[in-house]
Amino acid sequence: MGDTKTEEILAPLRARVKEQGDLVRKLKTDGAPDLDVKKAVAELKTRKKILEDKELSLAPSYTFDRAKMEDLLKRRFFFDQSFAIYGGITGQFDFGPMGCAFKANLLHAWRQFFVLEEQMLEVDCSILTPEPVLKASGHVDRFADLMVKDVKTGECFRLDHLIKAHLEKIAADKKTTQETKDECQDIVVKLDGMTKDEMAAVMTKFSMKSPITGNELTEPIDFLRPETAQGIFVNFKRLLEFNQGKLPFAAAQIGNAFRNEISPRSGLIRVREFTMAEIEHFCDPSDKSHPKFEKIRHTELLLYSACNQMDGKPAEKTTIGVAVDKGLVANETLGYFMARIQQFLVKCGVDPLRLRFRQHMANEMAHYACDCWDAECLTSYGWIECVGCADRSAYDLTQHTQATGIRLAAEKKLTEPKVVDVVEATPNKGLLGKMFKKDAKTITDALSNLQISDVDLLEKKLNFEGSYDLILGEQTYNLNKEMVAVKRYQKTLHVEEITPSVIEPSFGVGRVMYAIFEHNFKQRDNDEQRTYLSLPAIVAPLKCSVLPLSSNPEFAPFIKQIFDDSSGSIGRRYARTDEIAIPYGITIDFDTLKEPNSVTLRERDSMGQVRIPLDDIATVVHNLSYSKQNWSDIESKYPKFEQQESKGV
Amino acid sequence: MGDTKTEEILAPLRARVKEQGDLVRKLKTDGAPDLDVKKAVAELKTRKKILEDKELSLAPSYTFDRAKMEDLLKRRFFFDQSFAIYGGITGQFDFGPMGCAFKANLLHAWRQFFVLEEQMLEVDCSILTPEPVLKASGHVDRFADLMVKDVKTGECFRLDHLIKAHLEKIAADKKTTQETKDECQDIVVKLDGMTKDEMAAVMTKFSMKSPITGNELTEPIDFLRPETAQGIFVNFKRLLEFNQGKLPFAAAQIGNAFRNEISPRSGLIRVREFTMAEIEHFCDPSDKSHPKFEKIRHTELLLYSACNQMDGKPAEKTTIGVAVDKGLVANETLGYFMARIQQFLVKCGVDPLRLRFRQHMANEMAHYACDCWDAECLTSYGWIECVGCADRSAYDLTQHTQATGIRLAAEKKLTEPKVVDVVEATPNKGLLGKMFKKDAKTITDALSNLQISDVDLLEKKLNFEGSYDLILGEQTYNLNKEMVAVKRYQKTLHVEEITPSVIEPSFGVGRVMYAIFEHNFKQRDNDEQRTYLSLPAIVAPLKCSVLPLSSNPEFAPFIKQIFDDSSGSIGRRYARTDEIAIPYGITIDFDTLKEPNSVTLRERDSMGQVRIPLDDIATVVHNLSYSKQNWSDIESKYPKFEQQESKGV
Repeated sequence: MGDTKTEEILAPLRARVKEQGDLVRKLKTDGAPDLDVKKAVAELKTRKKILEDKELSLAPSYTFDRAKMEDLLKRRFFFDQSFAIYGGITGQFDFGPMGCAFKANLLHAWRQFFVLEEQMLEVDCSILTPEPVLKASGHVDRFADLMVKDVKTGECFRLDHLIKAHLEKIAADKKTTQETKDECQDIVVKLDGMTKDEMAAVMTKFSMKSPITGNELTEPIDFLRPETAQGIFVNFKRLLEFNQGKLPFAAAQIGNAFRNEISPRSGLIRVREFTMAEIEHFCDPSDKSHPKFEKIRHTELLLYSACNQMDGKPAEKTTIGVAVDKGLVANETLGYFMARIQQFLVKCGVDPLRLRFRQHMANEMAHYACDCWDAECLTSYGWIECVGCADRSAYDLTQHTQATGIRLAAEKKLTEPKVVDVVEATPNKGLLGKMFKKDAKTITDALSNLQISDVDLLEKKLNFEGSYDLILGEQTYNLNKEMVAVKRYQKTLHVEEITPSVIEPSFGVGRVMYAIFEHNFKQRDNDEQRTYLSLPAIVAPLKCSVLPLSSNPEFAPFIKQIFDDSSGSIGRRYARTDEIAIPYGITIDFDTLKEPNSVTLRERDSMGQVRIPLDDIATVVHNLSYSKQNWSDIESKYPKFEQQESKGV
Repeated sequence: MGDTKTEEILAPLRARVKEQGDLVRKLKTDGAPDLDVKKAVAELKTRKKILEDKELSLAPSYTFDRAKMEDLLKRRFFFDQSFAIYGGITGQFDFGPMGCAFKANLLHAWRQFFVLEEQMLEVDCSILTPEPVLKASGHVDRFADLMVKDVKTGECFRLDHLIKAHLEKIAADKKTTQETKDECQDIVVKLDGMTKDEMAAVMTKFSMKSPITGNELTEPIDFLRPETAQGIFVNFKRLLEFNQGKLPFAAAQIGNAFRNEISPRSGLIRVREFTMAEIEHFCDPSDKSHPKFEKIRHTELLLYSACNQMDGKPAEKTTIGVAVDKGLVANETLGYFMARIQQFLVKCGVDPLRLRFRQHMANEMAHYACDCWDAECLTSYGWIECVGCADRSAYDLTQHTQATGIRLAAEKKLTEPKVVDVVEATPNKGLLGKMFKKDAKTITDALSNLQISDVDLLEKKLNFEGSYDLILGEQTYNLNKEMVAVKRYQKTLHVEEITPSVIEPSFGVGRVMYAIFEHNFKQRDNDEQRTYLSLPAIVAPLKCSVLPLSSNPEFAPFIKQIFDDSSGSIGRRYARTDEIAIPYGITIDFDTLKEPNSVTLRERDSMGQVRIPLDDIATVVHNLSYSKQNWSDIESKYPKFEQQESKGV
């Protein structure tokens, strides 16, 4: 995107983004009304979109035929729409044998790369989530993730989409008054931050019905867990204990989550049910350095900073070390995970030239986050968010602490002991019990929870008036010096309590899979019909095929030997193996029958072939499949096998 | 359970079971009213339970302290109640790092043992399931799996349990009339087969409220998928195609399913959300032989047949070959899977002495199944069903075919071509279109769907009366000889269409895990406090620990080398490794520092120790972990290391 002519075309679009970006900044600095800021941001987004669309249209294009790829993926049952024989459900997909194996391999690689290499604590938590948990996490009140149902057909609609469509239709109607039009536009702008009750009120006010049947709609209803993260947060105490009370540590979870997406034609991108792989790295908020940062310091990433977005500038390539040093990426731990995310994605087949990290702008970032970068992949749908990487600060643990009264905190050793003054109201439990019977415990509890200023007051009252009125609800308890004493003393602290910060890399597994599909869908030179998937061996559903040259029974014992030696990683009976991404293929031919027995091994992407002794083949395939050797090692070690490849392969 | 004295005590109880079993048989033969049969079966169940409880009380007891085991499992966070900081949810559990690793290893072993070894087609289907699918599968109408919610608190109750408790309470009330008592008892007996609407009617009739708050209850509501199997059935066509149209083949799925269990105090046994691993083996209904049956023919299983259950007799040990030959187990494929299930369970840690296969009695078997055996494990909760293994015949595919109109069938090559007579009503489409306009297609479709007898009638009418009245709904179409002709001819068929039978092994993963926990919870001789889990290495969360004798920095490079060599299967920083089931432990001591470097390796169950060269250790641990060598191989190869073990380990 850097050449002069392209930049000439983009320059005015960049300027329009910057103009609006500056306006947003100014409105914020001036403390303008919320609605004005939101409107300006909406306009900024529109201008950014125009710029991005133009950029993409001018960029060197990838020859890619989505219909052809989808045909392959469906035909070979990588995935397809769920319940197709029942008419299909939009936004839900089933993975067939090849898709399921690809997914399992991707998740296995993820476990190796993150959980095992970084010694994370993996958990597996409930999907069914009680409402109070989602309330504390902010999902019930703040997220737009509610749905309503057609009371007769049971059809579901995502409420925010429904409101938006309904109001835009009203606003577009010529008969609508200007006043109503303005109201509609205001609501659409504010929709993002609306609570469940506010949305319900809009539904009622505009008498919204099902757009399909005209039937009544139910009240907004909540749903299953919208992310797997909460399972980790509510288990924080146990995990900290498991880690022997020490920070930092990370927990990880792979699991399904649900969202009320109703939007057709986006394949695996917008789905109602999806697998997430999430990491929550808990650390000291005052020390977000990472012990392994030096190992990845020189990794180059394409960073699209919030600032560049506001200024209409393009993404820039830089090392993560420089980005953290400059303060562009908030801290080492966040930067460390960004580099690791890139390494993982590329290893599993994402094209590094179609990968960028986009920083959330202040207006799109959750209010509690201090920094957030999305790993985005360029696909035929545009840039899509595949992995989020956010510093969520102490938000989640604080919220759950407030909701439950259970302190989700860690102890941090002080560099040197600290002496503090302690003031306590000490009850005479025996006497209180005698005097106040069953209320005694309530009184004792209340005394232990008094603020320092209240204890001061209590002391004063006892000293000057001889008694103190403790008011609890509608009850007043008159306490005297015998019932309660005030103690003052000093205590030496060796630890302090801190609420850890959370750095959260969060993978949308289906989206990562989709990006890998697109980036690896290829066709042979000179033959558009010969399409194939160049998935890296590590994630390919099957590692190797075995095809005898003919059904000659003499070949059978060799097939069996190869299978027995290689325990399961080898597929047979698969025609057109390139389409199901099998990276290596063994051919058994008449030369195989001769001593010393040998077979041909073919590599999918280069279509190169070598001749390998039968006894070596299992080890070679295993080493190739798990990146212990690469194809050029094999080509240099074994004789090349020259034969024209038939078109049917 | 075979000794004479025990049998003397059990004899009268066995007789009482047999007496009732015979009565049930007689009632069925006589075609007695449904309610009478159900009542007799209920009594049979009661008597069986009395017999079983007595049997268990007389059997050699396993010293097992459930409270102590649960304490260990919670303390080391294998699992614990979900959302505990929010008060906890009954019937939902979160797996912590050790439980999650155990579960992942168990599922990995399952994939190896079933999916890879048997070349099954693994799929991964949606959890959210549309109601028509559950209606066709029989879940909506027939299963008792409905819940109601307290309208104010949102608390959920399983409807059948609620009705049962409510009616039993009414029946027990002295003020209740005999008539109402009888009615209540009848409903309780019939509850199992009631539909959603019938249950709703009972709720209304007896004005049922929440037993906890007295609040109103919602209508019965449906739930998420109750089993993973349906995802496979609805994808049958794609899977058959993937398998190039050939039978038999098996599909497999690991996934979460949901049930409205509300029953406290049963740990992982009764849960609302659980992982299932299911196999659907599709085969020709007229040929259920299995090519690998000979390999497992001599496997001995403890079989508790339906007949023995009705007769009050105990379970009997027999080889699966004999059981299939005698017709006790319906067919080879079913028998093959039963043997494989046992092999798998034992490999993963189930005690073979506490494992039996119990056949469903006619009254508990789904009406469509031809045979069904549950692998049951003996635990402190009694015998619990862990794996079901059923021949579901063609039920599921037939149901979905009826519901969707899409034939879920396979083609079977006929041994010799078959000539059949074909009779067809052939429409003159052009003329029909002219005459009946938009109704023409409906008429054409109706003609092609006519039964043979209808075509005969059509031919007769056309010949003798010159026309035929085709009645479709309220419309009558008068057709003459120009509009429709009858063709008779012969056709040679090479294939016939068959609806495959389904053999379904279905694993309740949480229950299997629980049984393995119980069967492997042990305490050291002479020391009740030293409890440990003897999980087989293949499923153990961590394979090996590394503990330096002290924090001497000279040990550090050796720890690092061992880690680097063994890529992730080794845990460090874990104290009390026996409790988290780590099978092997490496100790680095001062002798390690001397050339040639060596370490001590300890085996958890025997507590035996050997001295091994540093360079060998990674390979040895790997081989032990994946059953390539066993401990006695190691003991015979390396010198024994004698040292008293400290009590703290």
